[in-house]
Amino acid sequence: MSQQQESPTGDAHTTIAELRDLVQQFVDEREWSVYHSPKNLAMSIAIEAAELMEHFQWIDAEAASAVADDPQKRAAAGEELADVVGYCLAMAGALKLDLAETVRAKMLRNHAKYPARAYRGKPSYERPAELNGDES
Amino acid sequence: MSQQQESPTGDAHTTIAELRDLVQQFVDEREWSVYHSPKNLAMSIAIEAAELMEHFQWIDAEAASAVADDPQKRAAAGEELADVVGYCLAMAGALKLDLAETVRAKMLRNHAKYPARAYRGKPSYERPAELNGDES
Amino acid sequence: MSQQQESPTGDAHTTIAELRDLVQQFVDEREWSVYHSPKNLAMSIAIEAAELMEHFQWIDAEAASAVADDPQKRAAAGEELADVVGYCLAMAGALKLDLAETVRAKMLRNHAKYPARAYRGKPSYERPAELNGDES
Amino acid sequence: MSQQQESPTGDAHTTIAELRDLVQQFVDEREWSVYHSPKNLAMSIAIEAAELMEHFQWIDAEAASAVADDPQKRAAAGEELADVVGYCLAMAGALKLDLAETVRAKMLRNHAKYPARAYRGKPSYERPAELNGDES
Repeated sequence: MSQQQESPTGDAHTTIAELRDLVQQFVDEREWSVYHSPKNLAMSIAIEAAELMEHFQWIDAEAASAVADDPQKRAAAGEELADVVGYCLAMAGALKLDLAETVRAKMLRNHAKYPARAYRGKPSYERPAELNGDES
Repeated sequence: MSQQQESPTGDAHTTIAELRDLVQQFVDEREWSVYHSPKNLAMSIAIEAAELMEHFQWIDAEAASAVADDPQKRAAAGEELADVVGYCLAMAGALKLDLAETVRAKMLRNHAKYPARAYRGKPSYERPAELNGDES
Repeated sequence: MSQQQESPTGDAHTTIAELRDLVQQFVDEREWSVYHSPKNLAMSIAIEAAELMEHFQWIDAEAASAVADDPQKRAAAGEELADVVGYCLAMAGALKLDLAETVRAKMLRNHAKYPARAYRGKPSYERPAELNGDES
Repeated sequence: MSQQQESPTGDAHTTIAELRDLVQQFVDEREWSVYHSPKNLAMSIAIEAAELMEHFQWIDAEAASAVADDPQKRAAAGEELADVVGYCLAMAGALKLDLAETVRAKMLRNHAKYPARAYRGKPSYERPAELNGDES
């Protein structure tokens, strides 16, 4: 991945706004914003998320992890992931949300909800005993 | 939105790598990568996508669009969108994918699959007559 | 529908157990129960639910309702609905749940949670004022 | 399960029509059919399917299978399964589909698509070599 990160079109040099505009331009050129109500976009995100799941539906966790090392399977899963992200960027546009700020704010709330010291090595769905008494 | 875009922590000044690292650090501090197999992450993306849908489940397209102008409803939907995006960033990490490159590549395929001239003002699910004979 | 209900293979003459056994036999003949862990079945139900959503993704509520009167579109949606139900029956088997009892019990809880008098003509997501003070 | 099957309200003695009418009556008493367009019901099925997935999100296949033997976890998962099935029954009503006939028809197509002899012990996503040349 390090190599790609050096790329001027890779994660290290691409802003959220650039990707969002790429999607917005595609939609505008086809006059598809009429279809892109938040309701339809929410369905679309869920539909593409399900297509991503299909790549892991019948295989176990080990085989699922091995997808990362199989260029063909990784690319196929990546296409679905790109679809999910594309619709997420469209949704941010439709809701007039700054996605970076929104993700940063949610991560702050997650830090408060799941203190690192209490949750280290423990699953999120089991409230550590030491937190009892605190409000979440 | 323009105001937020000026923010040093907003879409215009935040790279994909920055957001991805924010999520990765949160996971690492809690040693949660053991739970983050691509199979579990795919489920998580779908689960959060469904929580996003809940905000639009029973309302019509018009009311759904109005969510963008209601600060409280917009923020609530934004939290779920942030969760979807957070897991997408974790998935990119788990699959060792450069997300920006992956989205760019998919948008190029979308441009080829849905020529702007043929699809302008027409829904994606109805193949324009003028494309018959071409391969998709 | 009344005609079909008269059919010995229709809703009025088919028990849950009959449909469940039909699915179970199909799975057994292929020795597929090894793939049918509850985790995989939950994913499968969600994946088929998303395929059902695809039939309504870009159309409005009115056009969605008209699907019921279009034999071809209705049959296409019906195939996806059958897939969802098929996996639900398999899940009931995998969890050793009596599905009829489970649905009946949940409907009783729904009756208690949403009193008909208070919720008549009001959406489920808005708690009627007259219920304030009660616990749900 | 055998005990429950003897129950007059269990799978062996409950028709699809009975469960469907149970759901329909609940909806009618609250005048909720106005919300139950097929589009909204498709979203609802997917949302409840995601809530069912939550019970298996972070656990492995073995722990997921053990849910069947833990009365409390089994009941919790069963509630979500009941919600999925409830909305499926409402969808059948909204689409004027006989669900039993629809499931039977789909199972016949599945039998044709996945011949037992060819697929025995092999996953559905890998087409057996002996079927090459046949149409699917």
